Amino acid sequence: MALGLTTDLYQLTMAAGYYASRKTTERATFEMFVRHLPPDRNFIVAAGLAQAVEYLLDFRFTADEIAYLRTLPQFARVDGGFFAMLAGLRFTGDLFAVPEGTPLFPGEPFLTVRAPVIEAQIPETFLLATVGFQSMIATKAARCVRAAQGRDVVEFGTRRAHSPEAGVLAGRAAYIGGCVGTSNTESGFRYSIPVFGTAAHSWVMSFLHERTAFEQLQSLLGDGTIYLIDTYETLEGARRAASLGKPLWGVRLDSGNLIDLAPAVRKILDDAGLPEAKILATGDLNEHKIHELVAARAPIDVFGVGTALATSADAPSLGVVYKMVEIQGGDHRFTSKLSQEKHTLPGAKQIFRLQDHDVLGRATECVMCDTGLVEALQRPVILGGKLVETALPTATVARKNALERLARLPAQCQSLFAAKEPWRVELSPELVQLDARVRQEVAG
Amino acid sequence: MALGLTTDLYQLTMAAGYYASRKTTERATFEMFVRHLPPDRNFIVAAGLAQAVEYLLDFRFTADEIAYLRTLPQFARVDGGFFAMLAGLRFTGDLFAVPEGTPLFPGEPFLTVRAPVIEAQIPETFLLATVGFQSMIATKAARCVRAAQGRDVVEFGTRRAHSPEAGVLAGRAAYIGGCVGTSNTESGFRYSIPVFGTAAHSWVMSFLHERTAFEQLQSLLGDGTIYLIDTYETLEGARRAASLGKPLWGVRLDSGNLIDLAPAVRKILDDAGLPEAKILATGDLNEHKIHELVAARAPIDVFGVGTALATSADAPSLGVVYKMVEIQGGDHRFTSKLSQEKHTLPGAKQIFRLQDHDVLGRATECVMCDTGLVEALQRPVILGGKLVETALPTATVARKNALERLARLPAQCQSLFAAKEPWRVELSPELVQLDARVRQEVAG
Repeated sequence: MALGLTTDLYQLTMAAGYYASRKTTERATFEMFVRHLPPDRNFIVAAGLAQAVEYLLDFRFTADEIAYLRTLPQFARVDGGFFAMLAGLRFTGDLFAVPEGTPLFPGEPFLTVRAPVIEAQIPETFLLATVGFQSMIATKAARCVRAAQGRDVVEFGTRRAHSPEAGVLAGRAAYIGGCVGTSNTESGFRYSIPVFGTAAHSWVMSFLHERTAFEQLQSLLGDGTIYLIDTYETLEGARRAASLGKPLWGVRLDSGNLIDLAPAVRKILDDAGLPEAKILATGDLNEHKIHELVAARAPIDVFGVGTALATSADAPSLGVVYKMVEIQGGDHRFTSKLSQEKHTLPGAKQIFRLQDHDVLGRATECVMCDTGLVEALQRPVILGGKLVETALPTATVARKNALERLARLPAQCQSLFAAKEPWRVELSPELVQLDARVRQEVAG
Repeated sequence: MALGLTTDLYQLTMAAGYYASRKTTERATFEMFVRHLPPDRNFIVAAGLAQAVEYLLDFRFTADEIAYLRTLPQFARVDGGFFAMLAGLRFTGDLFAVPEGTPLFPGEPFLTVRAPVIEAQIPETFLLATVGFQSMIATKAARCVRAAQGRDVVEFGTRRAHSPEAGVLAGRAAYIGGCVGTSNTESGFRYSIPVFGTAAHSWVMSFLHERTAFEQLQSLLGDGTIYLIDTYETLEGARRAASLGKPLWGVRLDSGNLIDLAPAVRKILDDAGLPEAKILATGDLNEHKIHELVAARAPIDVFGVGTALATSADAPSLGVVYKMVEIQGGDHRFTSKLSQEKHTLPGAKQIFRLQDHDVLGRATECVMCDTGLVEALQRPVILGGKLVETALPTATVARKNALERLARLPAQCQSLFAAKEPWRVELSPELVQLDARVRQEVAG
């Protein structure tokens, strides 16, 4: 797939407009950020950078794609030179970004693109959909993991993901957010993520007797065997599983009242001399249900979260935006949008993280750098169209980054509800000054 | 992409289990359906069949993928013969389905797969994610189109879709559900769907003056020009656009109170002698906001719906399930799941649609077929691994099917809220009898 057309049409009509306006050499800087946090969130875990980078390095237009564009009414008046330019278009600009797994707050750029304006404009749609989606899922995963208080959480939601490919990426993002793995085999294959899963109800139903289904599973999987015990009657299923003894990993509960069922199943396993057999719970779980089960001391060892996690069900979109903050042609201008509810701050920025707050400053300044107590989160990833490091960090490194950084946030930012005192993001005096200057210029 | 691994791991461990249990020749029948409608829905518009068919015809395992599976602990005890089988695995079974665009109700199968059990089991995850997602979006689109009462609705949500590929498929599904098109260029290219879009705020901001940005756009797009007028001050933007006169298509409003702004902008256009210039409204719209704007007689000609549509924001998952209903090995068994809240009906089914209700019957019977008043909705699509017709219907045909069939539903089923009297789905006496028999067998 050539990817060039995987964008909103207006990115391409604007590209034609930039071409016609002889702006092809102007360099624009765009930043991606959220204006507000979704409900009940106190941070967003940045994820999806690796796929954004792959896209920037790979995107191009095939001859067929260009021929298609020429058939559209929007391109009827467009000069042939534009299409010749598209055929050779590659990303030659710069990408700065925070490492995957970094918790971010409103206004803080996930990434910054600086490139000739056409190269910076066309990727907007793809970058938003990639980084926005994975960050949303990584954040949801972090909430589930937090609620599980040390018990493992596995991502099981591919079937309800928004397309099969979304499921593959949800597996990756959930792992970065702290899950121990996913049921999505392709996620495991592509991104070296642990994969989990044993059998479904259809396995049990394909045999005349539940016991035969269990025996066959045990002989196949040995000490990795997880019996799904609720196809017919849960406690009866638990007794059948327990009667087979070792080897097994444990059992899975997928329906019914888990607060009552889990202790009853635990007792059956213990009475059968299988205290090390584990209980995996699934079935429309989310962070709040996990919290309730943990608070009720339900003897559940692992939570499998499906739909709620792979769709971020309570907050199924993340309001990421991609805004032009500078443009350099004959002159150099800082740009901002002044409409009432959608104001944006001008100029390329850097995020300076301190122990208990962030300072959003200009990319050209250094806030408190002499103190040694500050970390600048945005780093160069692509310069002049080339990857700066030989490879991007893996999902495993991103996951470690997320777990470490989330653990450092104050307790109230780790709550499942909006903190009374959210993480503080100050603006540097230089940035405030620039904003005032640009407002004056636009108004004047 | 070989697609074989784009599935939950347990489908593959079960496949290994079927292989070990010498069930490879057993033919299983699976059905995909929803148990309940999502909140406020009175139907689901079936969509995604074309992608499901492509998948079934294409899916296979590469040598690399098989090598990966061999490294997993779940496959440590699996016989080498299984992997050799996987390398040659193709879909050789049958697929029955309702045409895309058909409104369906709880319990009614979107599709039925009948194949050797391994070939029927592995596709579960992909089929659910494909058909579930597109049907969810087509349904949401139908709601927006209904609310617009004859005005056009365009899908603009790719940037907030759950991954770029989800955006491409959302464009397709929204079109099937009744939108006039999408902003997603790849959707247009792949599926021959009309595409829309002209320019964003960044276009305006890239010029020193709004007026210059407008002039350049007009010279590029002529009578397709849509001025985005709210970058700085909306009414000022409207006056600037109007002052340029013809040619233009119209203006776009993306923020502010549309109920107040639309009439004010309309007046500016009319006063400038541009009564035929149109107003396109965007900015966090959904079916309820569209309903309100239409009820308030806001002079808006086209609604662009983004996030709410591409994520089905108020109901971001569809509870599609894929259940084994028959299996034929040495004997022939009808299967059902008896757990309390998740009962399924046994046996392959047919949907018989009458004027004011449906009858869900067995696939082998014919309900009221002699009356000429009934339509059997499930049709063969793949038989013995081969597409029955030379090509699947296009998205355009599916859209027409949806519009016609939705128009025939009673008014209360077309409401944006749950109908007091939902569409009636009766079970045929033969199906009721089979269900009773299977319950007895399993209990006995």
